[in-house]
Amino acid sequence: MSKPSKYLEALIKEFSRLPGIGHKSASRLAFHILKASDAEVENLSKAILELKKNIKSCKICGGISEGDHCSICMDETRNIEIICVVEEAKDILTIEKTAEYNGLYHVLGGVLSPLNGVGPEDLNLKSLMERNANNIVKEIILAMNPTIEGDATNLFLAKIIKPLGIRVMKIALGLPVGSNLEYADSATIASSLSGRVEIE
Amino acid sequence: MSKPSKYLEALIKEFSRLPGIGHKSASRLAFHILKASDAEVENLSKAILELKKNIKSCKICGGISEGDHCSICMDETRNIEIICVVEEAKDILTIEKTAEYNGLYHVLGGVLSPLNGVGPEDLNLKSLMERNANNIVKEIILAMNPTIEGDATNLFLAKIIKPLGIRVMKIALGLPVGSNLEYADSATIASSLSGRVEIE
Repeated sequence: MSKPSKYLEALIKEFSRLPGIGHKSASRLAFHILKASDAEVENLSKAILELKKNIKSCKICGGISEGDHCSICMDETRNIEIICVVEEAKDILTIEKTAEYNGLYHVLGGVLSPLNGVGPEDLNLKSLMERNANNIVKEIILAMNPTIEGDATNLFLAKIIKPLGIRVMKIALGLPVGSNLEYADSATIASSLSGRVEIE
Repeated sequence: MSKPSKYLEALIKEFSRLPGIGHKSASRLAFHILKASDAEVENLSKAILELKKNIKSCKICGGISEGDHCSICMDETRNIEIICVVEEAKDILTIEKTAEYNGLYHVLGGVLSPLNGVGPEDLNLKSLMERNANNIVKEIILAMNPTIEGDATNLFLAKIIKPLGIRVMKIALGLPVGSNLEYADSATIASSLSGRVEIE
């Protein structure tokens, strides 16, 4: 068996490190790079470096930002009395896409997971508490992913936030829009039933 | 809705251009880049540029090569009387992995596809013919993908190669090793039956 090029092997190895990319996909991507135009390849390589170089964490919320503070924290039209707590910075983009929310955000940086050694001290909790220095926060919405760890984190946060006189909410569980009862799992249907809402 | 960073948007756009990567995967990859270490990001970016810069097409077979001629064409231990014709350069690697073949290769660069405007003049046919300048080629194995276009290309090639006194073979169709008759499609079973081999 002849050895393929070391450059090819190097790129396949680098692509394989990316999430959701196995060896076969990595190899397919590498061959795409080989066939792509010089400009396309340079753009990709540059975009990777530029992103890493220019994007920081917002010093207030932990979201992605080109400066010290992100565009949401600096936006004076947003409701500063509500903070939506999310696990990761990318969750902010997902929620922003809905255009349904006008408050601020806070990135926790994960969820409590004792089995993986993630305790409260590993999350951005202190900075969340500091954001209420002037008692302006009226409501905190917990938008963790609906997992066991997410639920536990919700309960933990509620326990420490409620005594401050802040309303603690969590996002609703239920059937996805456009889905079908027949194909929903029973945990989702149960959540959907217990979270039922009156028709007004 | 707040606008996410232009650097993030640029990288998501570049990733989306890659084969098999949709907008969601591209976004996931971009956020992975954000969280990755500086060294990891630089390695990826560099590997992409290096591959493009250092890999050429072998002037003889069209396979990938770091110099003018690839390691297979330069390998004196290989059987120069047999040429295996493949669609794309990456097919060479796939066949080499089996360690079953010791001849040379030729990359056709595609298959005949009149509907997509690919005619014989768009394939590396002339260079294939030139490789038989000294009449050393005794056998040509056609290893196109088993598609309608691949089959048509096989027939076309056989028609122009056979008159030169070269044996033209094609790779066998049949059940994949480890598969199950129950789940095979009828076209595969039919090929498997008509291509039956005597047990010796």
